[in-house]
Amino acid sequence: MKFSEASAVTRVSPGVYTADIQPDWDIFGVTNGGYLLATAVRAMGEEAPGRTLAGVSARFINPNRADPITIEVDTLKVGRSLSTLTAAVTTEGKPLITASASFSDGSNENRGSALVVSEPPDLPPVEDCVRLLPTSDAPLPPPFSGQVGCYLHPEDVAQFGQAQERPPVMRGWFRLLDDELLDPVGLVLASDGFPPAIFNSGLPVGWTPTVDLTVHIRNPGPHEWLRCQFVTRFVTGGWLEEDGEFWDLDGNLVAQSRQLALLAN
Amino acid sequence: MKFSEASAVTRVSPGVYTADIQPDWDIFGVTNGGYLLATAVRAMGEEAPGRTLAGVSARFINPNRADPITIEVDTLKVGRSLSTLTAAVTTEGKPLITASASFSDGSNENRGSALVVSEPPDLPPVEDCVRLLPTSDAPLPPPFSGQVGCYLHPEDVAQFGQAQERPPVMRGWFRLLDDELLDPVGLVLASDGFPPAIFNSGLPVGWTPTVDLTVHIRNPGPHEWLRCQFVTRFVTGGWLEEDGEFWDLDGNLVAQSRQLALLAN
Repeated sequence: MKFSEASAVTRVSPGVYTADIQPDWDIFGVTNGGYLLATAVRAMGEEAPGRTLAGVSARFINPNRADPITIEVDTLKVGRSLSTLTAAVTTEGKPLITASASFSDGSNENRGSALVVSEPPDLPPVEDCVRLLPTSDAPLPPPFSGQVGCYLHPEDVAQFGQAQERPPVMRGWFRLLDDELLDPVGLVLASDGFPPAIFNSGLPVGWTPTVDLTVHIRNPGPHEWLRCQFVTRFVTGGWLEEDGEFWDLDGNLVAQSRQLALLAN
Repeated sequence: MKFSEASAVTRVSPGVYTADIQPDWDIFGVTNGGYLLATAVRAMGEEAPGRTLAGVSARFINPNRADPITIEVDTLKVGRSLSTLTAAVTTEGKPLITASASFSDGSNENRGSALVVSEPPDLPPVEDCVRLLPTSDAPLPPPFSGQVGCYLHPEDVAQFGQAQERPPVMRGWFRLLDDELLDPVGLVLASDGFPPAIFNSGLPVGWTPTVDLTVHIRNPGPHEWLRCQFVTRFVTGGWLEEDGEFWDLDGNLVAQSRQLALLAN
């Protein structure tokens, strides 16, 4: 099923949407958080006509297991150039996500000042990367990876579970299947679409549930391919962060993400 | 007035708090966003007894001008080890901030895995740094800077408004006045307590209103002194991010922050 169909929302009353969360978009039976949040962002976008996602912050409360969801969107402000909305995502009354987002009219897009002190990740051509695909005889890669086009840097695959360069990094190409293009809703999906960089740290890490996730959109696209890089620099006090960068083929920054995850040994 | 008094909250009904936002905690008449958010976090903490802030995400909606605020706290989940709450901050019904936070019981603090791929900023002793203090004959430094102990790296002060090293950075020591110690509420204040790093980029930047701010607490303290560093790596599409790191005197990471700001030329 196409991403746009899997993340489709239905308006049932003013500001209230439902969505059928699909099976097989999961990791060990738990629905991928980026997919769930992307669906909520789609509902928020319906309530912000003519405006484009600039930033979204989400806190994950309970796991979803392909349960149908309700998304209640509140519009807190429709400003001259920015709108602010919140979304409460629930299933049968149980909270799954609380999120807030800013949508922009794009009027600041062409402000002159610009500074880019970083570079896209150095990736081999897609055909030399390793596509993540689930297999029938192992729980990993998870079913979710079959729903997207995630092509990992072969160096990062070779180092899975081992101590890699410091800081641990996960790099690769990302696209949607069926020739769908990535808009801001797709960028939210991409922000949680890769295996955790911490898997390449050599640390004994099992499960790293996302506690919060923020995505900042710098270029809404549409984009066919993303060059992605995820880095974790701090694993302390039972927590870790993961910072993502997303670049287009022309070497422009498309989005940034940061998540806080719990270290569950 | 002490920070703990300036950010005090009064419970007026279940989950509802009021706070008197103080004048002189402002920049050009607009209440400092970190101070405002810290006050909301204090109210959320009152509703999460025995638990400590792990992460907070906020979206800034309208500026406050020392107006008294109401903070409505909703507790979405009290889990085994994590609680999730939201706060709606308003003044006379006008929305100022929407925030969500996770509070932890600390049970994951002693998980063994640890990784730190960074270092505290290299700062001269406090007495060789430049304390930001307002003056009567200029709007900057703002009144807010007189309410905290913010001591900037002399190299970063010397470069104010000029092209500095890349990426632009703002480094310094931070503490509260009157011998108050920094707990997580104080760390939220610190996360927005410095002049923007972008001021040291050489770019023609005027006003950079914060759109969202996320703070992750790695060590709740209490801390007397923080070594702080703020970096901006991307100014594109009319937006910029600012990433903060906060370290204690023993070289341990205390907190991280990221904000998205609008580039207002």
